[in-house]
This record gives sequence, structure tokens and C-alpha cells, in this order.
Amino acid sequence: MNEKHLGKGSTNPPLSKGKLRLYSMRFCPYAQRAHLVLDAKKIPHDVVNIKLSDKPDWYFERNPLGKVPAIEMESGDCIYESLIIADYLDEKYPQRLLHPKDPIQKAKDRILVEHFSKIPTNVYKLFHGSDIDPLDDILTDLDLFEKELTLRATRFFGGDVPGMLDYVIWPWFERIDAFKIVAPEKFVIPSERYKKLKEWKETMKEDDAVKVTYIKPEIHVQFFNSYKSGNANYDILVK
Amino acid sequence: MNEKHLGKGSTNPPLSKGKLRLYSMRFCPYAQRAHLVLDAKKIPHDVVNIKLSDKPDWYFERNPLGKVPAIEMESGDCIYESLIIADYLDEKYPQRLLHPKDPIQKAKDRILVEHFSKIPTNVYKLFHGSDIDPLDDILTDLDLFEKELTLRATRFFGGDVPGMLDYVIWPWFERIDAFKIVAPEKFVIPSERYKKLKEWKETMKEDDAVKVTYIKPEIHVQFFNSYKSGNANYDILVK
Repeated sequence: MNEKHLGKGSTNPPLSKGKLRLYSMRFCPYAQRAHLVLDAKKIPHDVVNIKLSDKPDWYFERNPLGKVPAIEMESGDCIYESLIIADYLDEKYPQRLLHPKDPIQKAKDRILVEHFSKIPTNVYKLFHGSDIDPLDDILTDLDLFEKELTLRATRFFGGDVPGMLDYVIWPWFERIDAFKIVAPEKFVIPSERYKKLKEWKETMKEDDAVKVTYIKPEIHVQFFNSYKSGNANYDILVK
Repeated sequence: MNEKHLGKGSTNPPLSKGKLRLYSMRFCPYAQRAHLVLDAKKIPHDVVNIKLSDKPDWYFERNPLGKVPAIEMESGDCIYESLIIADYLDEKYPQRLLHPKDPIQKAKDRILVEHFSKIPTNVYKLFHGSDIDPLDDILTDLDLFEKELTLRATRFFGGDVPGMLDYVIWPWFERIDAFKIVAPEKFVIPSERYKKLKEWKETMKEDDAVKVTYIKPEIHVQFFNSYKSGNANYDILVK
């Protein structure tokens, strides 16, 4: 998982028997969604990290868009798009079902993910300047999650243990403290407004699947800064 | 289905026993996706049309975003977002499964829908002016579908009968001839480049579910023009 990111001129390591291959980038929140699902369901897999600034030619045969995450099966089939991968894995591997069993609840959770999908776009706008201040939109979307968690009155959105909704939104919560460090004047989250989410965030940090890929805020900041300088250091965690 | 569109000050008719309620707008391609799935699976439902330019207050209690489509169950539960509705209906009502049974094929079809989702945005740009000419992007995306249909060598993407992929992309193909009438100089589709898709489009028009909501190009044009003039005539088909 913390292997060197492969760029142009590299060779894709052969697939391992009985394992899925996840193509990832160690700091990509979308790729982290796939990691979390694979780890939560304990699906045997290996990881190949892709240097997104200098993508290997062979990667476009796996994902024509060149984005991460993608997963490759032993059959050679490849699929991409983080939510499609997450749904595929939950459908194909019945152990520890992450989606709610009730189709209405499953649909409602997917609607919440759809609402959530505006947050990354607005966070991006916040950092890269925009005519309209997107912070209000971010806070309004977070209100929805605070309210939902209060209504559900459970530790996680998924109940006693994290479910699909918890995992697919987690990567952005993991980065909140890093956002605060990078842009303290722009990224102002009134903590008393999100009491439940704050508790949830602390509890999520203790989850076994979350622990596998968890990166400390300072390291996220280091990556952000390298990325902003135009020379993204993907290999910060390589030993 | 061709009832008057309800606006502010209207009353929402009571739900009917044993039926789902679909909130729609007669010319909305996203709402048409929900119609197609309901009709293909023969799920009992009624339709309430929403005047999108003057939404009734009660509609925001069904969908806080105020968009169509949304479906309401007898339980009072509501869900929205066309693809989430489509997946929900296919999961909840087992008759005539529209998604492929094989999870990999299902994921691959969903990836194609994801690729397709850029087309409506680019069509919008084409009509509303944009710095870059979006036609090339539209044609490149259509190439993908032409190639896929050639590879599958079946009448429909779903095989001998239309499946989910066929239905969720159909509404934009139904409107292609109208786009050509509205903007003949901009919307230029080289027909020899899309032979398979052209055949597919003609065959789709004969499908029973497609026939239920099918609107002729001239009527679509009438709606477009009223919409562009700032006074959308939702009720063209009301008798």
C-alpha cells in the first residue's frame, strides 16, 4: 500500500493468484473509498500505486480515463469509478454487507452520498478561489449529515458498525484537520454546530478498516503543499 | 401522465392504494428514465406532473431539491435522483430484471452510464454557447457506444430486449432529431459513423415501454422553443 508510485516506463507487476488488484494513489480520497471497502470486507487484494502526474501507458489499458481507483480481476476485467467499485465489491462479496439490506434505506443512503458529492467540489473551490464563497454550501451540506446522525441515534450511519455511507464519506473527514491547517482563515467549521459528526469522526478513527489507510493531518498537509507547488510528492510514505 | 403540471397553490392528490407515485415533468429526460423503468417492469404507479418554473411548496417535502423525478411509496417514503430510483425499482421489484445479473457486467454498464452523463452537459453547452465547441466531445462519447454495441453484437445493450443501460440513455436519443431541428448548424451527427446506434434507435422506438412516453421530435421542438423563450409550456400534451 505504501509502495512507490509507478510512472511512465514502469512495468505493471503480474497479478497475484486469488487476489484482486487495486490501482490507487496513496493520497487520493476516491481511491481510499475502494481501500476501505476492501479492508472492511477483508477481500484479498494487492495494491499498485499510480504516479498520476506521469501515468504509465499500460495504465490506460486498465482505465481509459487514467484515473484511480480501478480494480482488476484475475480474469483481466477492470472496473473504475469509486462508487461503482464499492457497489460491485459489496454485491460480489457477501461477507459483512455494507449497504443496508432494505432497498429504501439503501436508496436513501445513496441520496446522501449524492448530496455529499458537492462537498469535495466546494472544498476545491475554497482552496483555488472562486467568485462565490463556497463555505456556506459546505456547512449546509454538513448540517444534513449532522441532522441525519442525530435522527438515526446510532454510533455510525450504518448502525453499530460503519456501513457503506460511513466509509464513502470518510476520506474527506480524515482530511478536515489538514484543510484547517492549510487554510485556517478559509476553512472555518463551527465545532458546536457539528457535535454528532465530531463524535462520529473520533469513533471512525478507531475502526479497523479506517486504521489501515489512515494518514495523519500533518502528512496530508505535506502532500497538499507538494501538490500545490506543482511537484506532488506521492511517495512521502514510502519507506 | 399527460395531466396538467401542478404549481404553487395546488393540492397534491392523495396517493392511490397499491400504487407508487411518480413526480415527473412531461419533457424531462431524467424523469423519463423513471417512467421507462416503471413501464418496462409494469410496476403499478400514478403520475403527478410538477410545474418546475413554479414549484408547489408541498413538493419540497417530497424532494428538498425540488427536482424531478421523485417517487413516493405508500409508506410516505420518498426517493429521488433518476439513477437511484432506477436501481431501487430494479432491486425491489424482481420482475424482468433490467440490470445484468453478473455483477461485473452490471458494473461495466454503470461505467458506460457514467461516461454517458457527460453528453447532456455537452448538449446543453452546444445550445447555450461555450468557449470550446463541445460537439467533438459528444461524438467521441457516442463512438464509445457505437463500438460497444458492435462488440456486443446484440440488438440492444441488454441483449435481445432492452436492459437498464438501454433505458437510461434512451431519453437523449429520443431528443436527437429535435436537437437537429433546433440547431441544424451546430448539431451535426455524421450518420455513417453511427450505423449501429441508428439501427438501435429505430428498434428502441418499437419497444412497448418506450412507446408509453415517446414524444415526436416536433413536439419536443415546441417545448424547447417555449423553454428558450422563458415561458416553458409544460402542458403541450394536456388534452
